[in-house]
Amino acid sequence: MEIAKPYLLFLGDVHDQLAAKTAGGIVDWRPDWCVGQLRLEGCNADCGIDDVTIEEAAAKGAKTMIVGVVNAGGVLPDHWISQIVAALDAGMDVATGLHKRLSATPEIAEAAERNGRKLHDVRFSEKTFATGKGTKRPGLRLLAVGTDCSVGKKYTALALDQEMRARGMKSEFCATGQTGIFISNRGVSIDAVVADFISGAAEWLTPDNDPDAWQVVEGQGSLFHPSFAGVTLGLLHGSQPDAFVVCHEPTRTTMRGVSTPLPSIQQVIDLVTLQGRLTNPDIRCVGLCINTQALGDEEATAYLNKLEEEYGLPTVDPIRTGPGPIVDALQAHYGG
Amino acid sequence: MEIAKPYLLFLGDVHDQLAAKTAGGIVDWRPDWCVGQLRLEGCNADCGIDDVTIEEAAAKGAKTMIVGVVNAGGVLPDHWISQIVAALDAGMDVATGLHKRLSATPEIAEAAERNGRKLHDVRFSEKTFATGKGTKRPGLRLLAVGTDCSVGKKYTALALDQEMRARGMKSEFCATGQTGIFISNRGVSIDAVVADFISGAAEWLTPDNDPDAWQVVEGQGSLFHPSFAGVTLGLLHGSQPDAFVVCHEPTRTTMRGVSTPLPSIQQVIDLVTLQGRLTNPDIRCVGLCINTQALGDEEATAYLNKLEEEYGLPTVDPIRTGPGPIVDALQAHYGG
Repeated sequence: MEIAKPYLLFLGDVHDQLAAKTAGGIVDWRPDWCVGQLRLEGCNADCGIDDVTIEEAAAKGAKTMIVGVVNAGGVLPDHWISQIVAALDAGMDVATGLHKRLSATPEIAEAAERNGRKLHDVRFSEKTFATGKGTKRPGLRLLAVGTDCSVGKKYTALALDQEMRARGMKSEFCATGQTGIFISNRGVSIDAVVADFISGAAEWLTPDNDPDAWQVVEGQGSLFHPSFAGVTLGLLHGSQPDAFVVCHEPTRTTMRGVSTPLPSIQQVIDLVTLQGRLTNPDIRCVGLCINTQALGDEEATAYLNKLEEEYGLPTVDPIRTGPGPIVDALQAHYGG
Repeated sequence: MEIAKPYLLFLGDVHDQLAAKTAGGIVDWRPDWCVGQLRLEGCNADCGIDDVTIEEAAAKGAKTMIVGVVNAGGVLPDHWISQIVAALDAGMDVATGLHKRLSATPEIAEAAERNGRKLHDVRFSEKTFATGKGTKRPGLRLLAVGTDCSVGKKYTALALDQEMRARGMKSEFCATGQTGIFISNRGVSIDAVVADFISGAAEWLTPDNDPDAWQVVEGQGSLFHPSFAGVTLGLLHGSQPDAFVVCHEPTRTTMRGVSTPLPSIQQVIDLVTLQGRLTNPDIRCVGLCINTQALGDEEATAYLNKLEEEYGLPTVDPIRTGPGPIVDALQAHYGG
C-alpha cells in the first residue's frame, strides 16, 4: 500500500477536535504533505492549515483526500459521500481509516471505477502474512509500549525517529495504526489483521536490516488492557525489540474504555521484559516517555524528575522536552 | 452457526492419519453423530467407522458432510470438488475448516444454491464481536493452557467436561477451534477473528452463567509460542478463568514449527497466573494434564508421579488415566 502525496484533509462536520485526531497527527508530523483542510458547515475541528475547496486542492496538486476523522460508530454519513465522490471526480484517490470499506458504498465504488482512482481502507489489511517465526533478525529495533492505550506511543516513536535522523543515525518509523500509516506512507493496521498473524505481520513490518539501523515501532494497546493485550503481545514478539520505552499519561486512573485500574510503570517494565525475552533475550527498557499535556510547566518538570530518580532511566516528555536524553542513551549503549 | 447432525465424514485421499485429525477427533468424542466415513481411492487414513457412499450416507440420514481433513496448503483439490457437489446434490450441507471458503469454488457455490443447502467455513468468523470489556461475569470457568501448541488442550477440556457431566455437575465445553466446533456444534475459531476482538470473542463464547455452572474452554497456542501468544493472551483475558490446567507433552523439545525452546511447566503456571489476574484475581492452577501417548505404561506412571510430587497438583493423562483427580479437586474447592 502506497498512498499518493500530497494530501487534502477532509474534516467533515465533526463536533470536536478529538474526532479529527488522525488529521491533526498528519499535520503535526507531515505539514509539507498537506495542501489544506476541507471543512463542512458546522465543523468544530481545525487543524490550523488553509481551508480549501476540492477544486482548490486539486489545483494545488492534491493526489489523495484523507478522510481524517472518526464519527460515532465509524460509519460514513450520507452527506460525506457526495464530497468523496467529488474528490474522486476531481482526480484524487481517497483514503480512510473507517471501519466500513469505502468500496462498500456503491456511489463511491462507481466514482472510483469511473475515474480510475484508488480507494485505500487502511484499517483493513489486504496483505496475506505468514505466521511469526520468532527468529532473530539483523538490525536494531525500538518499541514504544504503554501503561494504557492512547498515552502517546505514536508521538513518542515519531519524535524518537525524528531526533535519531536529525543526528544522522539510520532510523525508520514503522507504523502499526491508521494515523501512523498516513504519516509514514506505509505500515500495517496491526489490530486489523487476523489473530493468527499478529506477530507475523509485525515481522513483515520490521524485516532484516543493517546492523546499525533502527526500526522505531509504533506500539498498540497495553499488555494490561483487557481488550487489546493480545495485539500488544503479538506486536512485542514479532517486532523483537532490543530497546523499549514506556509511555504513560499521569492523570489516567483506569484503562481507557474499561474499569480496569492502571498498572504501575514498574509492572509494565517487568512484564514487557519478561515476555519480550522470548524473541529477544537482550531486550531492555531505555527510558520513560510521559505525556504531560495535562500538567503545568512546574508540575511537569517535578513529575519527570521524580520518575527519573525513581527508575534511574532517562525520562522525558517527547513533545514538551524532546526525546534527546533517550537518544543519548541509545547512542551510548548501541553506538551510532 | 449451527451445524446439522448427523455427519458424514469425508476423508478424501489423504496420505496419513494425521491429515484426518479433525475427523478422528469427531469420531473420538461424538461417534453417535457420525453415520460413516467416505474415503477415496488411495486414502491412508481410517477413522474406524463404516465406509459409506454419499448415497448410503444420505439414506442413513446424514445432514452434513464434514470435510474433516487437511491437505498441504489447505487448498481444495479438484477431485474433491465433485464429491462435495454430489453431497450437496444428495441434500446434505457441507462444512470444512479449510483456509479457502467453500463458496469461493464456483461449482460448489452453485450446487449449494441449486439445492438450498448451507456451506459452513468454520475457520472464518462471520460474526461481529464487541471488544473485550474485562468485567467479571457470574459462573465458573476453566481454561486449558499449554506449554506448546498441539499438546492435548482440546482433549483435556473435553475429558474434563465429560467427567464433570458424568458426576452431575453443570458443565459445558466451549470450542475455540475447528475440530472443537464440529464436536460441540458451536464455538468460535478464535485465531480467525480480527486481532482487536480476540478477548471480545472469548467473552462472547463464555457469557454470564449460573454461579455453580462450569464453562470448560478449549485453549489455543501458548503464551510462550512466538507465532500465537497474542491469541493465547486474548483468550486468557476474555475467558477470565477461575481455574486452569497446564497441558504438556513430555517428548517435545522446541515449540511446534519454530526453534524456540519449550518453557517449563512452572514458567507457564507463573505467567498464566500473573496475566490471568488482570480479569480474574482468583485465577489458580488446579492440575497438570500430560499427553503420555509417546511413553510406555511404566514410564508414564513414573512421569505423572514425579510431576505430581514436584508441583503438588493433581497430575493426570486425561485420556490414559482419566481426569478424575482434577475434578475431585474442583469439587473440593468450588463445590458442585
